[in-house]
Amino acid sequence: MRLAAFISGGKDSILAMHKAAEDNEISCLISVVSENIDSFMFHTVNIHLTDAIAVAMGKPLYKVFVSGEEEKEVEELKKQLSILKVDGIVIGGIRSKYQRKRFKKIADDLSIELITPLWHVDERKILEEVKEKFEAVIVKVSAYGMDESFLGKKINDEVIGKLVELNEKYGINLAGEGGEFETLVVDAPLYRRKIVIKDYDIIREPLSATMIVKSFYLAPK
Amino acid sequence: MRLAAFISGGKDSILAMHKAAEDNEISCLISVVSENIDSFMFHTVNIHLTDAIAVAMGKPLYKVFVSGEEEKEVEELKKQLSILKVDGIVIGGIRSKYQRKRFKKIADDLSIELITPLWHVDERKILEEVKEKFEAVIVKVSAYGMDESFLGKKINDEVIGKLVELNEKYGINLAGEGGEFETLVVDAPLYRRKIVIKDYDIIREPLSATMIVKSFYLAPK
Repeated sequence: MRLAAFISGGKDSILAMHKAAEDNEISCLISVVSENIDSFMFHTVNIHLTDAIAVAMGKPLYKVFVSGEEEKEVEELKKQLSILKVDGIVIGGIRSKYQRKRFKKIADDLSIELITPLWHVDERKILEEVKEKFEAVIVKVSAYGMDESFLGKKINDEVIGKLVELNEKYGINLAGEGGEFETLVVDAPLYRRKIVIKDYDIIREPLSATMIVKSFYLAPK
Repeated sequence: MRLAAFISGGKDSILAMHKAAEDNEISCLISVVSENIDSFMFHTVNIHLTDAIAVAMGKPLYKVFVSGEEEKEVEELKKQLSILKVDGIVIGGIRSKYQRKRFKKIADDLSIELITPLWHVDERKILEEVKEKFEAVIVKVSAYGMDESFLGKKINDEVIGKLVELNEKYGINLAGEGGEFETLVVDAPLYRRKIVIKDYDIIREPLSATMIVKSFYLAPK
């Protein structure tokens, strides 16, 4: 099947794409840009990163725009996806029924498949697979017990150990699906080049800290 | 017809799209990203601008990647365009037979239309229409007689007068199709919001000067 893979740059979307690519062709990547954000510049930082991944993979990137108004987004997405000649879409959702339901409706309405390779996969297993296959860096923390010191750290045994500890102590979701932390996959088997972060800012807010990538380059691997 | 419009952010591509939109639906925008460039960061500055235009227009943006190797590019583009369900593509070419021929082959092979609303239109007329309908800012100069003082200037009567003068004196192409100058359309009737440039750098090279937009925002109109 020819698939379009939704990517945010984070570990779940890249892992879902990785798994879907085993039996299918990834024809294009899709990133969702929401207009409902205070700072456009902040936003474009994330835009940069999906762009970098697309270049690293040598795949076209379809950027779709949504208003950020909940009741309108499904229709907005559907309209923009309707011009893609693909057999299915891939998303990285693990347990979010809310997200899955909305994408399922879009896929059904467009008569294409919804592929969710991580659906109900154990979070610990996901972290282990990310550690083995990818170089995934933590770029945002927003959870009790996760401070700025996590920023820039790779998902490795040490980080997984700490996350397991925080999960046992405070119940944070191990995969960060509730927004507890966000990652950026700077290298993966599907990348032909790896992303090297050259410079970044850290934005501190009362309940979160975010690493804003200011410049990067793509290095041969 | 449902069309995909190639945009670079410059006046010709935006004007071609503007004209095509009179009788057709612009389903998505396309920007071409070449990997064959020394500085990836320089490149992403341009990426920003097509992103900004897509957000300003509220249209999806399909970013296609080409290797920059001449003999491969037509095939690369064709493959990436083949997943778009559109009836045609729009380009801003005025006189470049080389560019037109390559896009015609792609369109023919995909059995879609090639729309070239500016083909052989008088350059002076194009400048006048740009002046009337758009806010188009000069962002690069690379021609004898065009110096840094042009950067940031809008295409208005004064600039058109100077270009006509340089055309008579040195024979530079009035529309800059030979790369003499490049523009960024910061406002147009199809934009729902206008691009406001906040900060920029100027990159000086022996034969050119480029205004690199570092930050911008989208303002209501």
